[in-house]
Amino acid sequence: MKKYSLLTDFYQLTMMQGYFQAGVHNRRAVFDMFYRENPRGSGFAIMAGTAQLLEYIENLRFEEDDLEYLRSQGIFTDAFIEYLRDFRFTGDICAIPEGTVVFPNEPLCIVTAPIIEAQLIETALLNILNHQCLIATKSARICHAAGDDSDMVLEFGARRAQGPDAAIYGARAAIIGGCAATSNVLAGKMFDIPVKGTHAHSWVMSFDTELAAFAAYASAFPGRCTLLVDTYDTLASGVPNAIRIFDEMRAKGRPMGYYGIRLDSGDFAYLSKESRKMLDAAGHTDAKITASCDLDEFLIQSLRLQGAKIDNWGVGTSLITSKDCPAFGGVYKLVAIEGDNGEMIPKIKLSENPEKVTVPAEKKIYRIYDAANHKIKADLITMAHETVDEAEKLVLFDPRAPWKKMQLAPGEFYAKELLVPIVKNGQCVYNSPSVMEIREHSIRDQNSLWEEHRRLTNPHVMPVDLSQGLYDLWQQMIYDARNGH
Amino acid sequence: MKKYSLLTDFYQLTMMQGYFQAGVHNRRAVFDMFYRENPRGSGFAIMAGTAQLLEYIENLRFEEDDLEYLRSQGIFTDAFIEYLRDFRFTGDICAIPEGTVVFPNEPLCIVTAPIIEAQLIETALLNILNHQCLIATKSARICHAAGDDSDMVLEFGARRAQGPDAAIYGARAAIIGGCAATSNVLAGKMFDIPVKGTHAHSWVMSFDTELAAFAAYASAFPGRCTLLVDTYDTLASGVPNAIRIFDEMRAKGRPMGYYGIRLDSGDFAYLSKESRKMLDAAGHTDAKITASCDLDEFLIQSLRLQGAKIDNWGVGTSLITSKDCPAFGGVYKLVAIEGDNGEMIPKIKLSENPEKVTVPAEKKIYRIYDAANHKIKADLITMAHETVDEAEKLVLFDPRAPWKKMQLAPGEFYAKELLVPIVKNGQCVYNSPSVMEIREHSIRDQNSLWEEHRRLTNPHVMPVDLSQGLYDLWQQMIYDARNGH
Repeated sequence: MKKYSLLTDFYQLTMMQGYFQAGVHNRRAVFDMFYRENPRGSGFAIMAGTAQLLEYIENLRFEEDDLEYLRSQGIFTDAFIEYLRDFRFTGDICAIPEGTVVFPNEPLCIVTAPIIEAQLIETALLNILNHQCLIATKSARICHAAGDDSDMVLEFGARRAQGPDAAIYGARAAIIGGCAATSNVLAGKMFDIPVKGTHAHSWVMSFDTELAAFAAYASAFPGRCTLLVDTYDTLASGVPNAIRIFDEMRAKGRPMGYYGIRLDSGDFAYLSKESRKMLDAAGHTDAKITASCDLDEFLIQSLRLQGAKIDNWGVGTSLITSKDCPAFGGVYKLVAIEGDNGEMIPKIKLSENPEKVTVPAEKKIYRIYDAANHKIKADLITMAHETVDEAEKLVLFDPRAPWKKMQLAPGEFYAKELLVPIVKNGQCVYNSPSVMEIREHSIRDQNSLWEEHRRLTNPHVMPVDLSQGLYDLWQQMIYDARNGH
Repeated sequence: MKKYSLLTDFYQLTMMQGYFQAGVHNRRAVFDMFYRENPRGSGFAIMAGTAQLLEYIENLRFEEDDLEYLRSQGIFTDAFIEYLRDFRFTGDICAIPEGTVVFPNEPLCIVTAPIIEAQLIETALLNILNHQCLIATKSARICHAAGDDSDMVLEFGARRAQGPDAAIYGARAAIIGGCAATSNVLAGKMFDIPVKGTHAHSWVMSFDTELAAFAAYASAFPGRCTLLVDTYDTLASGVPNAIRIFDEMRAKGRPMGYYGIRLDSGDFAYLSKESRKMLDAAGHTDAKITASCDLDEFLIQSLRLQGAKIDNWGVGTSLITSKDCPAFGGVYKLVAIEGDNGEMIPKIKLSENPEKVTVPAEKKIYRIYDAANHKIKADLITMAHETVDEAEKLVLFDPRAPWKKMQLAPGEFYAKELLVPIVKNGQCVYNSPSVMEIREHSIRDQNSLWEEHRRLTNPHVMPVDLSQGLYDLWQQMIYDARNGH
């Protein structure tokens, strides 16, 4: 990852100088990163991006040319610029591990640091986590639509991604969400994830005939031969030509390996069924059919309902841009700040908009599982000093509708803390798993959701509840703020 | 820009090896990059990204670790890997200059190179141009909605961009489309574009009172004081507190400089009118009102129609992700390839989908202007060897509806070629203007459109016509392909 110390909003730097001049810049502050709504009516999201956040934090320093640039803006003082010269992040960060299923209004990441440091990192932290959470979530939805065999979805979107990083880290996030492979070679190299792909229309067009193009490809890549059949006419030309090539390969007694055809246009339901019949009739029952072209989770679901004979789904634009919801909407809000005597003072932001009122104080999250089937029952946010005792009865209630309660007896549930420390006193204290390990964790975690939470539309809403103590503090602070205390 | 040689789809590399093994890899090929539809029903798009494309081309080479990675995939031959070790791009590229208004179905960029080279660069070329064209186009729409005074729109989207590059190059493209400044400090440094910003809610919350927070900000940044007034209650607390601060600044006789308030939530029509009245009543008629929060071109247009008193528009998510259309859809299609005797053979791709049939052959584009008012009348695509003679009558017709004709007499029009060489024999031959110069060119170019092409919905469609020669070739090739010649 490049050096992104200046990848920040200008107002972070003006505020930093403001804190610096007011002499309050070293007061410890606590910021929660959370989001308010799942993308596109999903029942959950997938955490992703922590590894890149750690790289950013580790490389956070200002070089001479950065300082020179800031000086040229004409509003920063020499003292502040000198302060930046030795700037390092010295705070603590905890985060929910990548690949984990997450829900709105719970902190995915908590930063505790001198306010001047916590302020600087807001923009890059949100940029990195918002992007990867967005694409991992979209990937999980698409893979779920493609069916439980999660080795069926391929990420093909590099050319439509919003710039190089969106292609590279988007491919990473797509794998985390459940995709089996990517077409993006650089992402394959950087993250040790499988890469896939065969040939394009230009390959076919560059030869005199489609058959010659197919023959050349099969000869170059025996054992790995997927032929794109829609350059001229799928059923009249492409599939028959592919079958001739497969027949020849078989006649020569070569091991066929992985082979098949790719459809990239037209009516996939019709074309895949007809192609399947033609391949089967020629004895190529093990040839695979891949479809690609403007696919998304709803189209995949519809094609499966129509009985389309598609083995692999290559998904491009819709996945790599999260086309129907291209922003995750994560925010970063101050929830506590050190007072004059070193005590941490909880903070709240009110709003005309009830769902934008923030929840104050330092927090922990417990995930509550049903002991009978290991499915997630709820997430419970507590104050940092509170614990959940599995030997005691647990009462859960909805903070936005506190009359809605659920009681769990000892033995009916167990609880796991979600947030783990990733940075302590400015030092990384977390070993990121490999991307393929994160993917495995994510697939397991998605399976701990009830089907009703996973469906694509109108999913059941997972309760994200507050402890009684946190709820009481919150209500008191709203009351006090409204009454001018 | 980082080294992006492996930022390519895996199939480009398999095809490259295929061409290499078939011994046809050095045949010159011509690829057109074009798009089929303007984003979100716009009447035009804005070309952007050429400078980054040039950086990519100049840095295109494979390092030992790249080769090692490819070798580890187990399907590339030693001879091909050795070929890659000395790989350089040796071809030609021409492109429409950045900031220029462009239309569907005309080549924004043409690559002429040995097919093995032209194939490799497809993915990164599309990634870079698709992203920046998308955001520049969205920016142009938003700036147009904000009014002719184009110094009113600020790009505030870094935290919601799809990764760091999307924030950085998105800010660049937003300026090219017409934005006056960005909040993104790194983009400001890299591209020498104006950066803006003041403070966030966390600034206000970190002080004991809103008034104390405003006073501290005003003292830190006199002459550049925009106060965010919606942390607790915009009209009951934020605006009155801001006015107290402005009164004090005035009483102290300080130059006020640029000052005002920012609204970030609530009903902007109502709040801006009420805030304006309060500011004016206190004698702060020159205080500016900035609005930010989920703005887009339609909301800005609606607020202006409602008489909202907003001077500056801070636009985040909608701009930096092009939220209602997050992919540009540019494609890269083979249009000619060198034959056995060195001649260039035009190529065509058919499709079930009529608008996906490609137009063959090497091309030029002429932009036809109305001599009376210098507005764009049409774009005319010709074969590479054709020219438009301004002394002759010009007949234009729609290639998808050739019975629709327009005749222009000498003197009624003039013609300008759009494509310029940017790479010759692998060497960059183009000096990119500065981003602010490109922005000026873009604003001028947008003004050469009729208002009917610029409106946000149902714009007049700009004709992109073919010369008679190119049209005849195209029809003959469709006929031949369908009849098996």
